[in-house]
Amino acid sequence: MANSLAGATQDEVRRHNLGNLLQLIHVHGATSRSDLTALTGLNRSTVGALTTELADAGLVSEQAPVGRGGAGRPSIMVRPQTQRVYVLALDVGVDHIIAARVGLGGEVLDRRELRQSRGDYQMSKILRHVEQLGRSVLAGASPDSVCVGIGAGVCGVVSHADGLVRFAPNLGWVDVPFGTQIADRLATTLPVVVGNDADLGAIAEHVRGAAKGSANVIFLSGEVGVGGGIILDGRPMSGAGGYGGEVGHMAVNPRGRLCRCGARGCWETEVGEEAALLAAGRPEATIEQIVALADAGDRQARAGLRRVGGWLGIGVANLVNLFNPEVVVFGGVFRQLFPATETMVRAALGTALSAPREQVRLALPQFGGDSTLLGAAESAFAPLLDDPLGALAHGSVRLRA
Amino acid sequence: MANSLAGATQDEVRRHNLGNLLQLIHVHGATSRSDLTALTGLNRSTVGALTTELADAGLVSEQAPVGRGGAGRPSIMVRPQTQRVYVLALDVGVDHIIAARVGLGGEVLDRRELRQSRGDYQMSKILRHVEQLGRSVLAGASPDSVCVGIGAGVCGVVSHADGLVRFAPNLGWVDVPFGTQIADRLATTLPVVVGNDADLGAIAEHVRGAAKGSANVIFLSGEVGVGGGIILDGRPMSGAGGYGGEVGHMAVNPRGRLCRCGARGCWETEVGEEAALLAAGRPEATIEQIVALADAGDRQARAGLRRVGGWLGIGVANLVNLFNPEVVVFGGVFRQLFPATETMVRAALGTALSAPREQVRLALPQFGGDSTLLGAAESAFAPLLDDPLGALAHGSVRLRA
Repeated sequence: MANSLAGATQDEVRRHNLGNLLQLIHVHGATSRSDLTALTGLNRSTVGALTTELADAGLVSEQAPVGRGGAGRPSIMVRPQTQRVYVLALDVGVDHIIAARVGLGGEVLDRRELRQSRGDYQMSKILRHVEQLGRSVLAGASPDSVCVGIGAGVCGVVSHADGLVRFAPNLGWVDVPFGTQIADRLATTLPVVVGNDADLGAIAEHVRGAAKGSANVIFLSGEVGVGGGIILDGRPMSGAGGYGGEVGHMAVNPRGRLCRCGARGCWETEVGEEAALLAAGRPEATIEQIVALADAGDRQARAGLRRVGGWLGIGVANLVNLFNPEVVVFGGVFRQLFPATETMVRAALGTALSAPREQVRLALPQFGGDSTLLGAAESAFAPLLDDPLGALAHGSVRLRA
Repeated sequence: MANSLAGATQDEVRRHNLGNLLQLIHVHGATSRSDLTALTGLNRSTVGALTTELADAGLVSEQAPVGRGGAGRPSIMVRPQTQRVYVLALDVGVDHIIAARVGLGGEVLDRRELRQSRGDYQMSKILRHVEQLGRSVLAGASPDSVCVGIGAGVCGVVSHADGLVRFAPNLGWVDVPFGTQIADRLATTLPVVVGNDADLGAIAEHVRGAAKGSANVIFLSGEVGVGGGIILDGRPMSGAGGYGGEVGHMAVNPRGRLCRCGARGCWETEVGEEAALLAAGRPEATIEQIVALADAGDRQARAGLRRVGGWLGIGVANLVNLFNPEVVVFGGVFRQLFPATETMVRAALGTALSAPREQVRLALPQFGGDSTLLGAAESAFAPLLDDPLGALAHGSVRLRA
């Protein structure tokens, strides 16, 4: 049982409340003091004192509303200082590197993307690209703004404790201290939070995307590999070491192909991008091309998609039976594959137990290909939202852009 | 983000602290006031005032220690009133009904078991047995003791919100309001908490059994069907409706047999009791007999166990990749099957990703066949531990035994 109230000092309560308010403003955007009062259960004068403190720290701005709707005094609006307080978000996938400056409140202020050719994953080259893109987006920040953190998504197994990338088979990485390397390259003492791409995608879609308001969420991602980010009871599932959610390595087909991980018949050998292209008989094509061919009536493409859709549904049924989510979000390559195979997916999902099946909704990500990037931004904001003034005191080292 | 501190009144803090202390005493047994002070972070005088309040309510007893070990004043010992405060715990499985009186602190005060023959699951008959066993164990309680709740475990899919048994294929139940029926039979207004057998087994082994001290736990149970109880980050996983953890219905073998649930190749069709007996070529035998035959060198029994062990390991590897647990506890029929197939299970587990695999421990339940029963007791105690004085005020209706 959490011991969250016992022994809390007045100062701890104040810091907790400051974080709570800033979190609300970060997620909801501009919010009136009276709405903040209602949302937190704190009294009006406490909210006023705390938002003034956040404003003095430069985290929010306060402004009397222009019009007045309804009865009573108009309440002061509290807005996140989106332009002034930001994080650097990074997403390193098998065929892209994205860097963005994301402001408090979740707005993307600047975004640069580099497509990289597959298989050419020299660590030094990736780090050089990350540095170039990072410095480039940071250079656009105004002099009076402050970078409060760095978050990075990677398509691999990441240790929760230290951000070590334990295993990224599709990048060829083993035990890579990516966070430290990014900090070194950017010559910063800012905290660098490294996370699994699917875990971060789940966070972004849960906080402000297709799964907003749902407490139990599965976000599927994948280009070459297939990953899963899982939110349970409103909190990211991590497991003992942060390695949970490796849905791509559910064994579903004992007669299937050998997987990169060494096992046979993993889900990703049936539904990953490579599996889809092989099933469609066109290993050199792209998923977009296969979908277009199927739409145009190509038999082999259609058969391939049917096969993949069936396996996709079987795996989703497993996840529904295991996790009982309200939403499954189809990110990564499934943004194309799910709409093209929805009938087969839903038919296979019919084999899930009815109680959890009745509760699940299938959805596409609201942020398209940027769910991981925006989740990386959320993870980078987390220390600030946990203890706004403390984080600002420790972390206000301006990055040299 | 939880809003646990904001807006809490002094009375709420006090109730929270009372619950926290009683929880500690319930789990740890007799604990000194100075240890409680250290464990809660509350100050000494607050702990003294609160334990006095718990003692006045009859929930704990306070006593100066007899000897004095080491320096300083000896600290007053606080003990749970095990004989005076108890719950009624029930476990309804496919071949047994168990009822027990379990005292605060987790001690089994009285326990009665009825073996039932399979397939004969008339609801009225089960309820009659539950009533008889329940009244029988309650009759042994002393007149100055009080029953604070009832918990029941069932091998089926149970709705978190209302305790409705949605689907118990191996009992032949669909949408059975078992909690209400128990309360009616026992003519009580006490709360009756109904839970899935595996979920409750996980709680008991997590709180005070083989998985004590581990925050991420999977408890496997099963007689005819196979269930999973999952604890993540110290909290039972429930999913949107309480239906999560249906590990028996992971599709692992697309060429497998048809499952009771209607799908093909579910894990329980490969590793459940029936599957093991079929694999050993002796559908009429018991698992104990198969294991004994294999030990005696019977070829078919050995081949059957090898087959089941391989599938057991494949499923456990899936769970390790998905949940990254510290412990997997083999309850139910796996109490026999796991020791008999451990080599095969560990070999198949070798296909899990190394990062989560390195962290997992395989264990047998500390409570033998009583994990579910004791978990039902824990769930029955939960309202009392959440708000001791409030629950006692509302729930102190003595059961007529």
